Amino acid sequence: MKFTKMQGAGNDYVYVDCFREKFPADPAKLSRAVSDRHFGIGSDGMILICPSEKADARMRMFNSDGSEGEMCGNGLRCVAKYVYDHGISKNETLKLETGRGILTVDLLIEQGKVHRAKVNMGEPILLSEKIPTTLPGDPPKNVPLNIEGTNLEVTCVSMGNPHCVIFVPEITDHQVLLLGPQLEKHPAFPRRINVEWIQVLSRSEARMRVWERGSGETLACGTGACGATVAGILTGRFDRSVKMHLLGGDLELHWSEKDNHVYMTGPAAEVFSGEWPT
Amino acid sequence: MKFTKMQGAGNDYVYVDCFREKFPADPAKLSRAVSDRHFGIGSDGMILICPSEKADARMRMFNSDGSEGEMCGNGLRCVAKYVYDHGISKNETLKLETGRGILTVDLLIEQGKVHRAKVNMGEPILLSEKIPTTLPGDPPKNVPLNIEGTNLEVTCVSMGNPHCVIFVPEITDHQVLLLGPQLEKHPAFPRRINVEWIQVLSRSEARMRVWERGSGETLACGTGACGATVAGILTGRFDRSVKMHLLGGDLELHWSEKDNHVYMTGPAAEVFSGEWPT
Repeated sequence: MKFTKMQGAGNDYVYVDCFREKFPADPAKLSRAVSDRHFGIGSDGMILICPSEKADARMRMFNSDGSEGEMCGNGLRCVAKYVYDHGISKNETLKLETGRGILTVDLLIEQGKVHRAKVNMGEPILLSEKIPTTLPGDPPKNVPLNIEGTNLEVTCVSMGNPHCVIFVPEITDHQVLLLGPQLEKHPAFPRRINVEWIQVLSRSEARMRVWERGSGETLACGTGACGATVAGILTGRFDRSVKMHLLGGDLELHWSEKDNHVYMTGPAAEVFSGEWPT
Repeated sequence: MKFTKMQGAGNDYVYVDCFREKFPADPAKLSRAVSDRHFGIGSDGMILICPSEKADARMRMFNSDGSEGEMCGNGLRCVAKYVYDHGISKNETLKLETGRGILTVDLLIEQGKVHRAKVNMGEPILLSEKIPTTLPGDPPKNVPLNIEGTNLEVTCVSMGNPHCVIFVPEITDHQVLLLGPQLEKHPAFPRRINVEWIQVLSRSEARMRVWERGSGETLACGTGACGATVAGILTGRFDRSVKMHLLGGDLELHWSEKDNHVYMTGPAAEVFSGEWPT
């Protein structure tokens, strides 16, 4: 089976072109095998680029544990790059089918290839019971929470998956690696939560580290960067456009006043291609 | 540049066949790039399989930080598999040139391909000043050492690189991840040290976890398994042949009374092949 390894802000997946390759018999098992970083190809998961009846292509994503995910912003940019660069579609605005419906991706082309892509990540969900969290407020803003003797103020938002955003003067390993997992499993979050630690640099720039539900610290989380932007705007810290520095690269976020959607612009790159024995 | 990803007991390298590919202009830089597990191919380093004037092939190994290593037992088995399976040599006993001279590897063939390989890892070094360590004894055996309030008994051996072996009733994360780095930098070891934690199961079987100098915990360490075997034999715990269970797989060790050499037998596997853009 031919594959292409791609990454967007360090979020790396094995991509299989199912326009040319047969759809795998057991994608969950295959994703677990290829994702292993010592005995497989090594990745955060596997994304299948498939034909769609309603869009330019359809993305099916599988996490490294084999579970199927609905959507991944960093992955979607790579799908868009693949679809354009490999001639599946030459539209500079692509429609891509995902587990969250058909999403639009605008391409930034350089020398005939996609360099960056802008994804419409949809509207944030601000009702506490839909995030879901038992904390007060729609959404909960700067709500005090004591974790392991540390007083925090948290702001919660959902971008289809739940986020707990904490603004701090400086981001430390202690916060991310020790308080992150405590927050993930805190009873205030019935479906657990992703935790974003944000150091504000200006009204349009910040640093972010993220503890992802079920994955631990990752180099980048697209929905997390969107959630943190919305949280910062709602609490008066940010203007509507923010450049976010993540461990794996930079993302540009914009929460539109016009349509209430969050737009994320970021890099997408092909790393190498190969053949997986089947 | 074409490459093959291979692993031996979970120790994984990017292998480049320099019989067919051009020797890279800057192998240190290339090794750093390909080894990155998110932005590269992802590996413990890069191994170049080169022509040799004195042997069937020559192995040049580069760590993930770009530094050149002399030898790696798990890597050497994979080199042997590649050399045989790809027809560079069809000898079932190969001579391979390494930074430690020419080493002999015996191949176990199944259905025309190498399945396991036995490497002559040479003689252990038992003089404390050559290991090197300031602990008493040649070698230091069951020497008490207090680390962070924990009383340990350590046995030291060199297999070309220094090892500190500790026999424990049960191996814990605390030992490997917290005491390991403390031991690595302990003043008794002037060139730092690799730390092996060994749970003896019988006189011929044990479990091992390893903290590697400069790398942290790894899935397997060939010289470490050899050093632990020698340490267990010298302290009366093991007979001359030991099966060692590591996180990445099993290794069989034998310290020969005849020639004083340590022989290591273990698996070697091709994972996938690919093309790295240059």
